[in-house]
Amino acid sequence: MLSRPSSSPRDTRRGELALIRHIRSCAVRSASGPLRLGIGDDCALLRPRPGHELAITTDLTIAGIHFRLDWHTPESAGHRALARGLSDLAAMGASPVAAFLSLGLPREFANPKGGWSSSWVARFLDGLLALAETHKTPLAGGDVSETPVPLADIVLIGSVPAGRALLRSTARPGHLLYVTGSIGGGAAALPHLERLARQSNARAGGMNPPRIPRDLEPLLARHLSPQPRIAQGLWLQRRALASAAIDLSDGLSTDLTHLCEESRVAAEVDPSLLPIHPGASMDYALHGGDDYELLFTAPPAASIPKKIAGVPITRIGRILPARPRRPAITLLTPKGPQPLNPEGWEHFS
Amino acid sequence: MLSRPSSSPRDTRRGELALIRHIRSCAVRSASGPLRLGIGDDCALLRPRPGHELAITTDLTIAGIHFRLDWHTPESAGHRALARGLSDLAAMGASPVAAFLSLGLPREFANPKGGWSSSWVARFLDGLLALAETHKTPLAGGDVSETPVPLADIVLIGSVPAGRALLRSTARPGHLLYVTGSIGGGAAALPHLERLARQSNARAGGMNPPRIPRDLEPLLARHLSPQPRIAQGLWLQRRALASAAIDLSDGLSTDLTHLCEESRVAAEVDPSLLPIHPGASMDYALHGGDDYELLFTAPPAASIPKKIAGVPITRIGRILPARPRRPAITLLTPKGPQPLNPEGWEHFS
Repeated sequence: MLSRPSSSPRDTRRGELALIRHIRSCAVRSASGPLRLGIGDDCALLRPRPGHELAITTDLTIAGIHFRLDWHTPESAGHRALARGLSDLAAMGASPVAAFLSLGLPREFANPKGGWSSSWVARFLDGLLALAETHKTPLAGGDVSETPVPLADIVLIGSVPAGRALLRSTARPGHLLYVTGSIGGGAAALPHLERLARQSNARAGGMNPPRIPRDLEPLLARHLSPQPRIAQGLWLQRRALASAAIDLSDGLSTDLTHLCEESRVAAEVDPSLLPIHPGASMDYALHGGDDYELLFTAPPAASIPKKIAGVPITRIGRILPARPRRPAITLLTPKGPQPLNPEGWEHFS
Repeated sequence: MLSRPSSSPRDTRRGELALIRHIRSCAVRSASGPLRLGIGDDCALLRPRPGHELAITTDLTIAGIHFRLDWHTPESAGHRALARGLSDLAAMGASPVAAFLSLGLPREFANPKGGWSSSWVARFLDGLLALAETHKTPLAGGDVSETPVPLADIVLIGSVPAGRALLRSTARPGHLLYVTGSIGGGAAALPHLERLARQSNARAGGMNPPRIPRDLEPLLARHLSPQPRIAQGLWLQRRALASAAIDLSDGLSTDLTHLCEESRVAAEVDPSLLPIHPGASMDYALHGGDDYELLFTAPPAASIPKKIAGVPITRIGRILPARPRRPAITLLTPKGPQPLNPEGWEHFS
């Protein structure tokens, strides 16, 4: 590394070794099952289940982009970093096998003054590992480096019987369109979080994440600690009921467009059917990201239950053939059909 | 993402989509073999070979830490990012199956003024993909995000017959210690590179990587385009000749200490046997990083050839039992045995 010739490499390295020891102490207990070798060698070793394929996804989480040090507790940042990857596994119908964490930290974060146990990093790992424990996902390896801002790249590895993964590219005209849970809450939480952080930091003069008032907890939890739909994805995969799936990370309009593009189909959505989260608006439900629900399709004959593993399932539209002048998504409004453009990303500008 | 509410999200997003399209166009051709599904879905899908385990490693590469924009060409930065991960696979005796790239870029890098083909990102990918092609490693997925400085997290997945991976933890007293190729060159190149960059930028007034004079090319190539020892690791694994292995990324003194710690043994090294790269010193050979050679052990009865796949193999010492007051590494100097401390990281401070 080029960092070594720079000033105080001794401190950085000591911080790095202490950090690796800390992560290893958190992680080593869980090495078992298909994970044959965890942290400590050049690579981790996984023994895949016979007849299974591995699903692999990587997700960057950057301070200032995906979370803010003055909005999110370290536990929430860690939870959300892992949730993004777990949600990708859920969308494939895969069960989690192992996670890898590449962690970048500014020098002052790698050498916390008060020791490890109460440091930002330790609390970030607490949030990440609590969610990993819920989904029986051992932390199997990773890397650490000095970076200008805290960041994490999370790799998730899942297992799915060969040929049975839920794909984005296999939706067919006539199939019905469903979502798990409720949508819009992840984005509707943001303005509340912004206001609370502004008030809290104006009062305390600091840069600490705000306390959440009890009445806002259910809504803000949609953003601060989203629950990836692993059980629902597995249920659909095992029964071969879904014809295609994607997770709602960027917002319904954007993610449904991805699904239509990959499947070379179009879709229509009935807004009156949308399971809008209490406190969210139609706009948030159509374009807001961060819900981490599953969007899936199934043939009309498939018997999709009202709930899967305790989470409500709602039919919201259907798949249409792609036509030259037909928009990827048509919204069936009271004023008639209207194109729905993928604008989750620009809606809050 | 929280970035969307900030200023000009439209441009960032357009850059992001163009970047993903560019990466996909580079990568899609190679999806084949065990890689069942590459970029474009929630996860990539790998079908492991029956009876094989997967070796998995992640490596962060950060501008200003692992490379410098004014020292390294984008091609060299991309090559080195992938080489770090491939070298970890080599040290396990694994053959590469797929790579994943999480790429962080400042906004101006994601929207290059002159278009993609000559941009820093395109050239970084060229360097990375050229080495990937050499080792038949398809780019199977990843992520992109805005970051304060360019950075990459590379995930490498390799395949190795179950139970046959070369480990750090299985060196035994009495076994002999070997290295592939030559050592010290990776670090000896650095002061030359620093000087050339200073002269070049003083002349041109810019921040561009320097041209390398022809007589320095062989030495500087050790740093700028290291060759991971995949073929040598595979050879050792297939013949079950090595009892333990690690790659030399942090320097002999540091990496041999890791091997001794994981195997709970000690080692002695004869400095007169070290294959020091022309232009490097004993100090660089003992403590310099970035060589990406393999350090391995083998029982005395094992018949280790003078070359493996064209690369010289040199015996440099042997493994000893760990004893309470014995240092992890003893250097057999003309003045008698001396402890060798792991100080690759602080030696150039």
